[in-house]
Amino acid sequence: MESPGSDYTTVITKAFWWGKMSMARQLIECVPNFSEGRRSEVIEAIVDPFRRRRGCFLLDQRADPDHNRLVVSLVGEPGPIQEALLEATKAAIRHIDLEQHRGGHPRIGAVDVIPFVPLRNLTMEGCVELARSFGRRYHEETGVPVYFYEEAAIRPERRGLEVIRRGQYEALKEEITKPERLPDVGEPRLHPSAGATVIGARKFLVAFNVNLGTGDLEVARSIARAVRASSGGFCHVKGIGVALKERGLVQVSVNIVDYEKNALYRVLELVRMEAKRWGVEVVESEVYGMVPAAALLESASFYLQLAGFDPSQVIELRLLELLGGDKG
Amino acid sequence: MESPGSDYTTVITKAFWWGKMSMARQLIECVPNFSEGRRSEVIEAIVDPFRRRRGCFLLDQRADPDHNRLVVSLVGEPGPIQEALLEATKAAIRHIDLEQHRGGHPRIGAVDVIPFVPLRNLTMEGCVELARSFGRRYHEETGVPVYFYEEAAIRPERRGLEVIRRGQYEALKEEITKPERLPDVGEPRLHPSAGATVIGARKFLVAFNVNLGTGDLEVARSIARAVRASSGGFCHVKGIGVALKERGLVQVSVNIVDYEKNALYRVLELVRMEAKRWGVEVVESEVYGMVPAAALLESASFYLQLAGFDPSQVIELRLLELLGGDKG
Repeated sequence: MESPGSDYTTVITKAFWWGKMSMARQLIECVPNFSEGRRSEVIEAIVDPFRRRRGCFLLDQRADPDHNRLVVSLVGEPGPIQEALLEATKAAIRHIDLEQHRGGHPRIGAVDVIPFVPLRNLTMEGCVELARSFGRRYHEETGVPVYFYEEAAIRPERRGLEVIRRGQYEALKEEITKPERLPDVGEPRLHPSAGATVIGARKFLVAFNVNLGTGDLEVARSIARAVRASSGGFCHVKGIGVALKERGLVQVSVNIVDYEKNALYRVLELVRMEAKRWGVEVVESEVYGMVPAAALLESASFYLQLAGFDPSQVIELRLLELLGGDKG
Repeated sequence: MESPGSDYTTVITKAFWWGKMSMARQLIECVPNFSEGRRSEVIEAIVDPFRRRRGCFLLDQRADPDHNRLVVSLVGEPGPIQEALLEATKAAIRHIDLEQHRGGHPRIGAVDVIPFVPLRNLTMEGCVELARSFGRRYHEETGVPVYFYEEAAIRPERRGLEVIRRGQYEALKEEITKPERLPDVGEPRLHPSAGATVIGARKFLVAFNVNLGTGDLEVARSIARAVRASSGGFCHVKGIGVALKERGLVQVSVNIVDYEKNALYRVLELVRMEAKRWGVEVVESEVYGMVPAAALLESASFYLQLAGFDPSQVIELRLLELLGGDKG
């Protein structure tokens, strides 16, 4: 990805770059989490490289002061996203000191977690490779030790983020020399101010909530248990019951970690079926945050009983293909 | 829309153009119909300008030898589409002689019909203006008389294409001097070889078929009558019953001419309800050809009971916005 002359405007260079993409170019999502949710100038310094870099599209940034944490949502090609990430992570490391950091969310580093998500023309295996090679380069350039998680985990027990982050920065500082806590990349000592970073590959996560017409939290909890993997439900669903007190409703709050295997409609209809056993109706559902078109089109296909439907029949998806393709 | 240097490749100039689009730039569909479905070199001459012009995206071209007709589907900005249309229509007028033309589909001109469809950042009123100003310019540059139809009709009775095309080229040649058949633009005489052209504005048309588990055509016909506007059904639906003989099924074949007012799910559920009265089930449905994302997302929203859903939550739609926007 060579840059055209720097006197182009950002807009034009970005579209120019996009125009150079062939249909086979890869598209990923990346959702880096930084341990800063309060100081706006630091947040700005972290986010700026994502805004400037062509081929890296900043979809969302959420800074939470209570958590003292910044979550950024990016889409683009692996190359530009990695370059922007290196700039952004160096800014975070410069400005954030874990020795001083307090916040409501568990963390072990200034750059806490970086998950890569395959979106198009990239397998999960390709994304795992990407995460691991980025992790090595990140360590070389910053000195921060790296742990690999989820699909990119090298030690099977490290698939779960909670295992790596146990006791947070403060505990890891003491325990990092123990065999079970040794980093996957780097010497067994934390970066003196930036701690360590967890890097990995995972599928696109769809946050899906179903609200039920009752105030009885036990109904939502019982249904969450029926739906989620940890108590025997769908293999790629996490879920809890939550009270929506102001509305007098309860919610089955679900994360679908593989929407291709556990479709939204299937989760909804199971919740509906279980709710009926309590005489309770589904009031509404909610997709929280971003969602791939395929996840909703699959539910449309199911309910409309569409046969032989091809996503390239959708004008906007076709247009995106054409913009990214060799013919335009 | 000025062209960048001609030594750019088509791909890059197209994306370059796209990059220059602001969020407020307009997007239209255009589906011109030409009276040539057999001679491949003529078809190629007509279609070539659509391929070459940046900002004009050729989604589909269907040449039917029996109909002796070519239907082209374009998406893009009004400016580039109009420029490409002028080139393509001049090629069609050069090569097609209505005096010699035979085919199964009704027609009055070498360039028979050009509908403009608003897709984004353009109202129907804006699209009507576009159709009428394009019609005047087309007449000036080609000498072909123009009739305006559908939303762009100047005479209310000309909303229907069938009224304008009554008796086809051969009858219109005799009757064009009659007051009720005078063209909307141009003198009351046909172009000696290219006839006349119908130009208009309409909403995006969704072709939607529902297959029923019976061989009884009367069931499909009866349900089509319940669903379509002409016999008292939904105001923006046309429909007929069709036998699918090889499969032993029947089909309710529907055109939804305003999918925002008559949603796909509502049509399907009405068909399902009526079919039950005959003890017949819906076997499957089918979206034929292109469809706007919103049409399917609305059905997904309905069945999933999604509350507060915003299409910009869909990654691909967001990406398209960003590519077309000032930030990238």
